[in-house]
Amino acid sequence: MDERTRVALEHNELRMVGDGVHLPDLVELRREVEDWAEWFAWWAALADRYEEIGDRELAGGRHVSAGENLWQASICWQYAQFLWFHEPEERLEGQHRKVQTYRKAAPYLVPRAERFDIPFEGTRVPGYLRLAHEERPASCAILIGGLESTKEESYHFENMLLKRGVSTFSFDGPGQGEYFEQQPFAQDFERYTSAVVDALVSHDLIESDRIGVLGRSLGGYLAVRSAALEPRLKACVAWGALYDLGSFFDNMEERTRDGFRYITAIPDPELAKETIIAGVDLHGVAEQLDRPLYILHGALDPLIPVSQAHKLDDNTPRAPTTLVIEPQGDHCAHNLYHRVRPAMADWLAEQL
Amino acid sequence: MDERTRVALEHNELRMVGDGVHLPDLVELRREVEDWAEWFAWWAALADRYEEIGDRELAGGRHVSAGENLWQASICWQYAQFLWFHEPEERLEGQHRKVQTYRKAAPYLVPRAERFDIPFEGTRVPGYLRLAHEERPASCAILIGGLESTKEESYHFENMLLKRGVSTFSFDGPGQGEYFEQQPFAQDFERYTSAVVDALVSHDLIESDRIGVLGRSLGGYLAVRSAALEPRLKACVAWGALYDLGSFFDNMEERTRDGFRYITAIPDPELAKETIIAGVDLHGVAEQLDRPLYILHGALDPLIPVSQAHKLDDNTPRAPTTLVIEPQGDHCAHNLYHRVRPAMADWLAEQL
Repeated sequence: MDERTRVALEHNELRMVGDGVHLPDLVELRREVEDWAEWFAWWAALADRYEEIGDRELAGGRHVSAGENLWQASICWQYAQFLWFHEPEERLEGQHRKVQTYRKAAPYLVPRAERFDIPFEGTRVPGYLRLAHEERPASCAILIGGLESTKEESYHFENMLLKRGVSTFSFDGPGQGEYFEQQPFAQDFERYTSAVVDALVSHDLIESDRIGVLGRSLGGYLAVRSAALEPRLKACVAWGALYDLGSFFDNMEERTRDGFRYITAIPDPELAKETIIAGVDLHGVAEQLDRPLYILHGALDPLIPVSQAHKLDDNTPRAPTTLVIEPQGDHCAHNLYHRVRPAMADWLAEQL
Repeated sequence: MDERTRVALEHNELRMVGDGVHLPDLVELRREVEDWAEWFAWWAALADRYEEIGDRELAGGRHVSAGENLWQASICWQYAQFLWFHEPEERLEGQHRKVQTYRKAAPYLVPRAERFDIPFEGTRVPGYLRLAHEERPASCAILIGGLESTKEESYHFENMLLKRGVSTFSFDGPGQGEYFEQQPFAQDFERYTSAVVDALVSHDLIESDRIGVLGRSLGGYLAVRSAALEPRLKACVAWGALYDLGSFFDNMEERTRDGFRYITAIPDPELAKETIIAGVDLHGVAEQLDRPLYILHGALDPLIPVSQAHKLDDNTPRAPTTLVIEPQGDHCAHNLYHRVRPAMADWLAEQL
């Protein structure tokens, strides 16, 4: 295995397993992938294998396994295209196949994920609702992805909330996943979250005064912004804090900066940078948040400095805040997923 | 890390993760354990940490997390004492603490595990029932452990069955787990399984004509024996085949032979060996099985040769048999847990 692949694995293995990749598959990857150039094709082949198994199980009426394996195909597509910036066509293929295999899995997940396309100014915001109970109303958590993560990767986190009696709604907003093609990054992300809240409060099985929001990575910023400006959100979790991107943008590695510029869909790099920096800034917004806030940040986060978590905490004086800094945590404390994720689910379930 | 620890991990890491050990804990173990002598104490300390967290969560009313962390303590005790043959007192401590922490976790598992002590000729056979549905009857799978595995490790496999609508009853029989102290290995294990069936058929929420059995490792033998001699068992899974121990006993490594002799509780090694060989033999028994049988075996199993799976298949002429030999599978194909375990759960759910 070459250095690049080794580093990619070393940095992401725990995150992958935490998100649901099977460890034996990573063991196989270690044995089989010798060169970074094979990364995408290896994951794509694995995804195809899972999709085939899922299709066979679907035909045979083994619906639980079908749902699991089709979802497994989806998470493999995610990690095929993840880090694969240099081949935009393959990257796009990975994104599309991730969306498509998840959509196929959705009706067979336990509990099932129901697709909603929420009309918004001529576009349709895509999301999935999973109900904690079939027969009686429950609270609901809105889950927001980040720069790299989309609604499809929330599956295991959803399961944790569902086990705790909280229904879930995961969606892609501006600049994210399958909605990116309809709408690139937008400063007013909270309006999209509010459209989701509109849809949820009119649902018979959601208790309209028990809706919260959680966002991961860049989604941590989006969740706080949404909660600050949408009073119907009762509690907020920033799974990774981000207060003002401009204060450290130039210190990030080139690839991450490219990622941020990419979601603006603005070809001119300078203008793209200005737009994203102006758009990812909580000055004057965070101050308005007056509901409970949970901030989780890894002290060793190599992408977003831990000072952002303190800044967010300092600038939410009206929000009762629980600040958790994991001394050994990496980005979003993914390397400690087994401890930090259930703790966030518990906190949110308690608030709602 | 010394060679012994490295090998112990290499051989068991996937099994551990498949059984529910958290991968970040194994990463920490790799960093922290330098010498094999530290193994037991390292796991014991981790178990204590999980139990403390679980206790705190229990006090705080976070019942789902409490159940998960107390169970995590239990699986850590399992792997503390696993392979720890040379210190009988610590080994026994590990067994006791495993039982005790599981018992504490049981009411908070989702769905909860209800303790049953089934009276049997002056003793009490310990087991746990978990119901797939609270309000309506379901089928039920009886789960039998092996030489090393007990009812506490069945948790994740139970979850797979429960997700598929099958209730579960996991118990320790003669020579196993906490029942060992009441009753060492007994040739007539099927009488204990029948006592479990008696208890289940009288339960309101179990459909008495939809009960099956699955056994793991040595439990594969015990399950087939039980099903052959107990007509109320509708289907049988041998998760690892074993037909006649005597045909390969002398080829096993010393530690495994010790393990088999140990469960007889007979001090004389020669007599212990004769007893276990006479007791683990399906000649004249397997032939009687006339219900569906699923056999899973790893072709590379270093403990029980794959020929045992073929022998079992050959000697169950009246049972409609599904024989699955995993070409790359180790003992019980634990290294392929992500594929082989859901497949067994699917098969059993379909039969019941």
